[in-house]
Amino acid sequence: MTTNPTGNLFGAKERPLEGLRVIDLTRALAGPYATLLLAGLGAEVIKIEDPRGGDLARENSPYVGRDGIVVERCHEDDVSVSHLTRARGKYGVALDFKKPGAQQVFRDLVRGADIVVENFTSGTADRLGIGYDVAREENPGIIYCSLSGFGATAPEGGKAMDIIIQALSGAMYASGGPNEPPVRIGIPIADMLAPVFAVIGILAALEQRHRTGHGQHIDVSMLGALTSFVAIENWSAMAAAGMQARTGLTVQRLSPFGVFECADGYVAVVAVHEKLAQGLFRAMEQPELSQDRRFCNRDARVANAAELEALINGWSRTLPTQVVVKKLEAEGVPVAPVRHPEDALVDPRVVARQETMEAAHPNYDTHIDLRTAGIPIVFSDARTGFDDVLPVRVGEHGEAILSGHLGYTPERIAELRAGGVI
Amino acid sequence: MTTNPTGNLFGAKERPLEGLRVIDLTRALAGPYATLLLAGLGAEVIKIEDPRGGDLARENSPYVGRDGIVVERCHEDDVSVSHLTRARGKYGVALDFKKPGAQQVFRDLVRGADIVVENFTSGTADRLGIGYDVAREENPGIIYCSLSGFGATAPEGGKAMDIIIQALSGAMYASGGPNEPPVRIGIPIADMLAPVFAVIGILAALEQRHRTGHGQHIDVSMLGALTSFVAIENWSAMAAAGMQARTGLTVQRLSPFGVFECADGYVAVVAVHEKLAQGLFRAMEQPELSQDRRFCNRDARVANAAELEALINGWSRTLPTQVVVKKLEAEGVPVAPVRHPEDALVDPRVVARQETMEAAHPNYDTHIDLRTAGIPIVFSDARTGFDDVLPVRVGEHGEAILSGHLGYTPERIAELRAGGVI
Repeated sequence: MTTNPTGNLFGAKERPLEGLRVIDLTRALAGPYATLLLAGLGAEVIKIEDPRGGDLARENSPYVGRDGIVVERCHEDDVSVSHLTRARGKYGVALDFKKPGAQQVFRDLVRGADIVVENFTSGTADRLGIGYDVAREENPGIIYCSLSGFGATAPEGGKAMDIIIQALSGAMYASGGPNEPPVRIGIPIADMLAPVFAVIGILAALEQRHRTGHGQHIDVSMLGALTSFVAIENWSAMAAAGMQARTGLTVQRLSPFGVFECADGYVAVVAVHEKLAQGLFRAMEQPELSQDRRFCNRDARVANAAELEALINGWSRTLPTQVVVKKLEAEGVPVAPVRHPEDALVDPRVVARQETMEAAHPNYDTHIDLRTAGIPIVFSDARTGFDDVLPVRVGEHGEAILSGHLGYTPERIAELRAGGVI
Repeated sequence: MTTNPTGNLFGAKERPLEGLRVIDLTRALAGPYATLLLAGLGAEVIKIEDPRGGDLARENSPYVGRDGIVVERCHEDDVSVSHLTRARGKYGVALDFKKPGAQQVFRDLVRGADIVVENFTSGTADRLGIGYDVAREENPGIIYCSLSGFGATAPEGGKAMDIIIQALSGAMYASGGPNEPPVRIGIPIADMLAPVFAVIGILAALEQRHRTGHGQHIDVSMLGALTSFVAIENWSAMAAAGMQARTGLTVQRLSPFGVFECADGYVAVVAVHEKLAQGLFRAMEQPELSQDRRFCNRDARVANAAELEALINGWSRTLPTQVVVKKLEAEGVPVAPVRHPEDALVDPRVVARQETMEAAHPNYDTHIDLRTAGIPIVFSDARTGFDDVLPVRVGEHGEAILSGHLGYTPERIAELRAGGVI
């Protein structure tokens, strides 16, 4: 079952994971993002959904369809933008695991697969009869990946939503300044990071399988993935050394370093070293600050950081962002505008490298660039990108997969349908 | 060259990437984090450093040594905590690529390696004679990964520091509320995300090499990696649908949802659905709010979100965080304290799974738990963790590697040392 691959950087090259098959039991965001990455790298992904409603992401507003982009779903073929972007390149099969016969279909699928990914609440997959033990029984080579809030081994500690994990991981507290509230990070970083590590685990297990011939179970926790990121900063060492760790928009021990205000927006500026600080002062048309004993060397600038930051803001606040950026660039000072996501997503550099890509409803054109995540890896001898396939309906590719991959007869398929299994 | 592996979850099991060798040309954070992940997954990592100073991360304050943890370096064997955590499990070889003879050592190393990783400024590796073309000439199977700010193909657009990439990617703007400044995310997310995708690219290329026998070049951009994360939210669709995307500590279209104030801290609360909202009102000892026409259903709660949030804060602000958490948990409402990173890093769940781990100076005990990032993946039939090796000195394992791996004679090594090459 191959379709015309679209959105590829490098013409007819193969994708790196071509030939691998994934049984995708995931819902919402964390799991589906893992299998999206696998699909974009060339694996064939078969997305299993409950015939009664399917993936929760299908209910996320806004929707796209014949009326363009709408907040409420009006037509049967309105598709949530979440589903449209997360289900790209995936084949859709409906299976109701609460119906007898569904487990057998799952077992048959696993026999011809390399990878299974699930993000049910810990323990649910086993209870449904589709856990690792069952999968391994059918196929000892299977690599079975579980994504959960706190890990398959941990007692479940409540519902693991992105905001809950952000709070527990320290990531929220680490953002924001002294005597300021914490900060909710505006991208679902906990939901996104665990799947990235899940893909690393799956690919590492594939490498091991080349040596041993055996698959295994991989277990990634949202809390663990995000906490490991937070842990790269040396919090306890900084505290022991009396260093301020939570510093808000600027970092005073590197002053001048941080985000400054412009007339119409904000810029990030880094002028830690002598040459850069001098460049900043020239851009401000106050070169004499280089001689000022409050700012004439790094230690002085750190000691008088608040004063220095006020001077910089006093200057930048009067000018448009683009002018501040140009003036600092002309002096070789690292600077960038704080961009709105809509502007960031169409940066010609990320568009050219397909790090962001357009998504579209299969049947309706919206005249709006529904730009979404691509695969942010460029290979010299492989391409990335998604097959031109998407399960608009739950179970859209069920018959094709069950007859094509599993050799089920039309009678068997009709029987499964009659029983509400598919 | 094997040492006693430490810090493993699963005793004598193999690590998934055992048998692979990495030549590590990286500096600072983004590159070294990529090779740290490869080391923790079992690859043998040989870290190449300039004999004049070595990795920049060696200069990051604070340091650890005979005087404990200090802001300024006093003794020759004081090691920066950054180096101590990022160089775990890596062998150190010094090579000055500006000296004749260094390229030949690099070529000899590449012949016996599987992977090269570098994060020089775009174009620098080629100029130093250690780029992909040279590596492929020696070893057509080599997988050569370049990490850079904007991609190996893009014209260099200024220095790519974490804060610059955060600003350009939209991640900063996405965090924070309407009419509020953007937010600097307090973990170096741009520096950390690109290496994670680099590892995915390397492992995917290894899989492809099993089919084709050939290596390739992999090119990951910090801007692309972080922008692809930002792009998972449907910014243009939300704007087209008139939905608020930048909402600060709470998300009013899901109200009550967000971060609320306690007497001594903050909590994250999710009470989007009917049952959860009722639970929240009971926890607040104001069950009558369920009948209040401002809050009696989801649409009403969204329409009156500001009022509802003020009521919640009015209640939670009077109570300690732990009490608010307990009261909400008792009603089944998803809740979590906003934890300080130091508390987050010692959560027994992440400690048990080695998602965070202790780091230590090889010679001095600090009595402080220098907790740092582990490998946040648990394998059923593999272990993760780092060999008990660390280049305290630049080039510490040079002789052992050059004689053991490359068969260089003592005379040849002495000559390289005399020439300042190693």
